[in-house]
Amino acid sequence: MSLSEPLQEHKETLLTALEQGQRERLDELLPELRAADLSEILEELVEEEDDLASVLSLLDCLPLERRANVLGYLPGEVQLEVAQSMSDELLLSVLEEMGSDERADLFNLLDEDRQEVLLRRMARQEREDLKRLASYEEGTAGAIMTSDYVAIPSGMTVSQAMMRVRQTAPDAETVYQLYIVDPEGKLAGTLSLRQLMVARPGARVDDLMIKDVIRISVDEAQEEVARLVARYDLLAMPVIDHDDRLVGIVTHDDAMDVVESEATEDFHKGMSIGQLEDGVSRVPLWSLYRKRVTWLVLLVFANLFSGAGIAYFEDTIAAQVALVFFLPLLIGSGGNAGAQAATLMVRGMATGDVGVKDWGKLLGRELLVAGSLGLTMALAVAPIGVMRGGEAVAMVVATSMVTIVLFGSLLGMCLPFVLNRVGWDPATASAPLVTTLIDASGVLIYFTIATAVLTGV
Amino acid sequence: MSLSEPLQEHKETLLTALEQGQRERLDELLPELRAADLSEILEELVEEEDDLASVLSLLDCLPLERRANVLGYLPGEVQLEVAQSMSDELLLSVLEEMGSDERADLFNLLDEDRQEVLLRRMARQEREDLKRLASYEEGTAGAIMTSDYVAIPSGMTVSQAMMRVRQTAPDAETVYQLYIVDPEGKLAGTLSLRQLMVARPGARVDDLMIKDVIRISVDEAQEEVARLVARYDLLAMPVIDHDDRLVGIVTHDDAMDVVESEATEDFHKGMSIGQLEDGVSRVPLWSLYRKRVTWLVLLVFANLFSGAGIAYFEDTIAAQVALVFFLPLLIGSGGNAGAQAATLMVRGMATGDVGVKDWGKLLGRELLVAGSLGLTMALAVAPIGVMRGGEAVAMVVATSMVTIVLFGSLLGMCLPFVLNRVGWDPATASAPLVTTLIDASGVLIYFTIATAVLTGV
Repeated sequence: MSLSEPLQEHKETLLTALEQGQRERLDELLPELRAADLSEILEELVEEEDDLASVLSLLDCLPLERRANVLGYLPGEVQLEVAQSMSDELLLSVLEEMGSDERADLFNLLDEDRQEVLLRRMARQEREDLKRLASYEEGTAGAIMTSDYVAIPSGMTVSQAMMRVRQTAPDAETVYQLYIVDPEGKLAGTLSLRQLMVARPGARVDDLMIKDVIRISVDEAQEEVARLVARYDLLAMPVIDHDDRLVGIVTHDDAMDVVESEATEDFHKGMSIGQLEDGVSRVPLWSLYRKRVTWLVLLVFANLFSGAGIAYFEDTIAAQVALVFFLPLLIGSGGNAGAQAATLMVRGMATGDVGVKDWGKLLGRELLVAGSLGLTMALAVAPIGVMRGGEAVAMVVATSMVTIVLFGSLLGMCLPFVLNRVGWDPATASAPLVTTLIDASGVLIYFTIATAVLTGV
Repeated sequence: MSLSEPLQEHKETLLTALEQGQRERLDELLPELRAADLSEILEELVEEEDDLASVLSLLDCLPLERRANVLGYLPGEVQLEVAQSMSDELLLSVLEEMGSDERADLFNLLDEDRQEVLLRRMARQEREDLKRLASYEEGTAGAIMTSDYVAIPSGMTVSQAMMRVRQTAPDAETVYQLYIVDPEGKLAGTLSLRQLMVARPGARVDDLMIKDVIRISVDEAQEEVARLVARYDLLAMPVIDHDDRLVGIVTHDDAMDVVESEATEDFHKGMSIGQLEDGVSRVPLWSLYRKRVTWLVLLVFANLFSGAGIAYFEDTIAAQVALVFFLPLLIGSGGNAGAQAATLMVRGMATGDVGVKDWGKLLGRELLVAGSLGLTMALAVAPIGVMRGGEAVAMVVATSMVTIVLFGSLLGMCLPFVLNRVGWDPATASAPLVTTLIDASGVLIYFTIATAVLTGV
């Protein structure tokens, strides 16, 4: 994507200072930029201008902690390029300064030899932590959690806990939600810093903490984390392993990123586009082609059924050519109504507004709404039917319209539930799939009605 | 929506206890339920079973603060029903306990007479605050912000600020991000509680604070708040008026709700469904009909152009009926490819990945991708063309496929930018609109090519 104007200006100022070797000017300019903004400038430099050298020089001007922070904001492939041009020594120090979740993500991108070299040079605990975090499957709670949380041993007093918070403050991802763990490492309760601050210093955290903590298992889906964080307005969500031991937290900002990326994924699925690894403006062309072509070609074959249907009714068509005029209208309308119904269900299921149990109730509702929609559209098209082909054709077209819209809407509504039932993502009930199915059925419905009415069978 | 099983069980236990008048049992059961869960049970009671009486009795069992909290989670119309059955006295105390943003929302739902009565009984400052918050237009930063933030007067020391935090803790929406204001109420800087905790008690907040605060104006769109909160990983976003005075904050959980509801709105727009006031399972049928019918009927008329196109080429069709077999396939494929391209652009623009300036670059990319897609699909369909209608028909169908897919994709890609340019929401470039436009163009392209090839014109 293109940079916004102020960022474009920042970029040019930075490049000029870099070219002229004005290190002092850079030290003045760089701290003014937020990590999210600076990383966007660096990303553009690598991806648009292929200028890795400037990126590395600019990163070199940053103190280590900030360098790690900025790096964490960059897309994976850029991080990898930067990492590849760093010495082992430097990369190790940068990794150490990164948040534990970002560290694991970058580590997973490196090739195995480099991973081995780096692991061998790490302290044991650090190594175990990294190996563990890097091992969780993408898309799970484990893969997006961080191990930089504040754990308070059960039995501590409020003032001891407060001391612990102050000690952990520089490294922890958040210090505002504290987790109390028993000697076995199991999650015993939680306490907000706010509660701690207003509590009596001598009180025990065990007496203050909330014991019924909302928690999630490491291998649950990241969508579920996001759903719970949104539902209960959490600042962070504790993640536990199979023995109920606390192993990490997912903070609100990471949960928000999940909501955005899941919505984008569902949008693309809704149009039968496979999951992109990056934004549409950056993903390679070949990948964009592959993600779109599969369903399009499948639908070419599905669409042939409509053709076969038309061939079957050749005599009816030959007898009344005016019927063909209304073909795009009828199948188009059915497809539109069906795609609407499918989208309402898919989105309702994604946000948790619609459950599988609601199926029966929603079917009744859709029947009423789609029936009314079909009638309205039939009334709109009837006069044109009379004009073009006479009353008989008008009757065929109007009847077909009601039937096709009703059928299409019900198909669109039910498909997400059926897919869900067989274990597929309901979002696969995409507009292209739904409209193609309805196209074929629409042809059959239309010409069956036409044959019956016009030939009096 | 239906309740999850554990919530269904909770509901039944609560109702039994209520029926048998076991107040103690209720006092035991109610505190175990989280506000988000209890409110879902109450919502179901009102909407599915029309049992407002039980809802009111259950709310009566809650302490005032929790009652206000649970009420805030309920959908607007249920809040209104509950409020209408409360005495002025009770409603006033509940309003007082609510968060200032939720208070303003509920207040806005009441009829004017009741508003007047309540305002007259409020303290002056409370009244001004409520009137101000209730006055912001829906969808703006002002409408979703809260005035329950921690403001630290410029010039305070760290220990004074810490004292202020402790005092404000019970009422503030968040105490973790503090805002420093000058004597005129202007936003001078911000400081996290974490920074405050590790600072020297005698230091001045003015020397510690970050002066370059990300802020937003009251009348900016709520999407912009959400976008900035997500981009900069903020816990809360300060909102300022036109004189740069701090008037409220939007917290991360409210920003997350905006991301979800904006995504749902865009999904629905993508299928030409108007904005629903509530989830699809709850919104009234009549409203669901109205939100879907407008575009469907408009598209009926747009689709007639395809019909007119077919009528114009009647001779070509009569000469080669096999052409009709491929009609649904060709316009369907063009529509699918176009809807994909439109969705990629619309979503890219919504997440900020695609900017208006990227148009030229993306056009080139789409040209390449769509050309390859069209060629692939043409190759897939060509053998069937030969089978059905001979080589000439196969050539017509294959050429048309490439042209229609290319044209459709470019139309789908450009439409969101064009709409954006004329000031419309790009999401209006919905699948139904794009496919309908492509249907009509597809008919023209197909039969023009057919006429040229088959009649040798």
